[in-house]
Amino acid sequence: MYREQIKVVDCTVRDGGLINDHYFDDHFVREAYKALSAAGIDYIEIGYRCSKSIMSPDKFGKWKFCEEDEIKRAIEGIESRSKISVMVDVGRVEKDDILPCKDSVIDMIRVATYVKDADKAIDLANEATNKGYEATINIMAISTALDTELNEALDQIERETKVSAVYIVDSYGALYSENITYLVNKYKKYLKTKEVGIHGHNNQQLAYANTIQGIIDGCNYVDGTIYGIGRAAGNCPLELLIGFLKNPKFDIRPVLDVISKEFIPLRQKMEWGYIIPYAITGMLNEHPRVAMTMRKTDKKDDYREFYESMSASEVD
Amino acid sequence: MYREQIKVVDCTVRDGGLINDHYFDDHFVREAYKALSAAGIDYIEIGYRCSKSIMSPDKFGKWKFCEEDEIKRAIEGIESRSKISVMVDVGRVEKDDILPCKDSVIDMIRVATYVKDADKAIDLANEATNKGYEATINIMAISTALDTELNEALDQIERETKVSAVYIVDSYGALYSENITYLVNKYKKYLKTKEVGIHGHNNQQLAYANTIQGIIDGCNYVDGTIYGIGRAAGNCPLELLIGFLKNPKFDIRPVLDVISKEFIPLRQKMEWGYIIPYAITGMLNEHPRVAMTMRKTDKKDDYREFYESMSASEVD
Repeated sequence: MYREQIKVVDCTVRDGGLINDHYFDDHFVREAYKALSAAGIDYIEIGYRCSKSIMSPDKFGKWKFCEEDEIKRAIEGIESRSKISVMVDVGRVEKDDILPCKDSVIDMIRVATYVKDADKAIDLANEATNKGYEATINIMAISTALDTELNEALDQIERETKVSAVYIVDSYGALYSENITYLVNKYKKYLKTKEVGIHGHNNQQLAYANTIQGIIDGCNYVDGTIYGIGRAAGNCPLELLIGFLKNPKFDIRPVLDVISKEFIPLRQKMEWGYIIPYAITGMLNEHPRVAMTMRKTDKKDDYREFYESMSASEVD
Repeated sequence: MYREQIKVVDCTVRDGGLINDHYFDDHFVREAYKALSAAGIDYIEIGYRCSKSIMSPDKFGKWKFCEEDEIKRAIEGIESRSKISVMVDVGRVEKDDILPCKDSVIDMIRVATYVKDADKAIDLANEATNKGYEATINIMAISTALDTELNEALDQIERETKVSAVYIVDSYGALYSENITYLVNKYKKYLKTKEVGIHGHNNQQLAYANTIQGIIDGCNYVDGTIYGIGRAAGNCPLELLIGFLKNPKFDIRPVLDVISKEFIPLRQKMEWGYIIPYAITGMLNEHPRVAMTMRKTDKKDDYREFYESMSASEVD
């Protein structure tokens, strides 16, 4: 599949940082950036831009804040044609912490939001585009969004923003390919002037397959992470995505190299990937947080009990 | 997705046996059989039926031969409504080693073949159905089958056999969803009186996704293994498949239980799953054997070098 418009966004450091509270060391971030640049990845998302007045720097590593000097130090001297992206969360960043783009090393700002906060996301996205950045709006937990609210949000984003793309974010790893097709078609119906993006989670081993489905259906912004690193079950493995996209600008070899050297040792210390409790939360369309908590207890491999506890709550 | 005609075939002991030369102990096989029976799985494939005159019993464990007494001992006293399947390989079984079905505990015989050996597979499948078994023909390495040969084989199988199903076997884990759709449609065109089956390998994390695609396209025989166990990258995880199929006869809990108790400890001793060299052979549409050999050397994590060696051979 080769479609020139397709942009690959790597979220290794950003989504991976959700596992270790963004405490990656400089060596790791440099090696990831170097490999991704050599691989020809379009955008490298290096973390979050949160405001220190809102999120405490005592509790999070520096990639939660992505201060300009820190980014500069991490990428200094590395040849790259990739653009730099950061994510901002609705409610976790002050507008003053977004510099004019001309004074920043950042090229793209992606606004993460729940559908209910679409108005705030639009406000933040406009702040970014007005300051000269490329921006996207990433609608999280899409598998729990009410159709009517989502329609309204998409309509409003189309009319009120200048974002390049609006993302389907399958935060719970709950979607099947037919849901992807349904959502991409819906997005395309509302977003006449914007691209559709897709960000998968791998709870049910569908992140890559759903990304392919998204591409077939017309998504032109696609996310991946090296070796699938990311919170809980992780994301679409970038190496697989590059294997699928036939665009000659991509080179898989630097990614394979950095997996060998950095990610195999890292995986011994940090947990992500196909792990049954995350598969269960995906099947049940639930946030992985309960599974993440359970993985830190001595019952971390009691899968049946976990499944039963997740299915047992009375509903009225 | 609930379609009453869908039959789930578990290949845990059979395909898993390809990792350890079929040396599973009785405890493991009993626990797997018990869990699969309690989960309501339609068929449990317990190994191969090879002839000891052809394959040496010094080199393989007993699940390579599946003698009647061994199967009986493994399942004795376990309540089950599941049917028992074994696989036979073209060229590795003498007809005399296939008893009349009435004298056997086996219900189904699946004939594994390359497309070029379709005539031999038909002969063997007819031997099985004539002796009273249900039979299938499983066309391996389908991603390398020539279209003209495949068409001819399917036509012949339709006309000359009484098998219940003919399988698409993605031995190399090389297929994408669009290839699945193409193949299922082709199979359906030729096989007017037989079902289509699908057996995926997980090199590119697509075994489950491709199985879903097959189901959407009309496959009614679908294979899985507990925790995805199987040669190299393994297979479609049965627990995910049960999560997708809404048929109330299935119960995921016994499968979760046996994963906790048997498969998590086993995975420490035996290797399968998403491992980069297998992803590479999948992308390149190659047999995983080179990757399996490489995983036994001290260069087992030199992915870039492996990729380059796989891509470097001159072609004329």
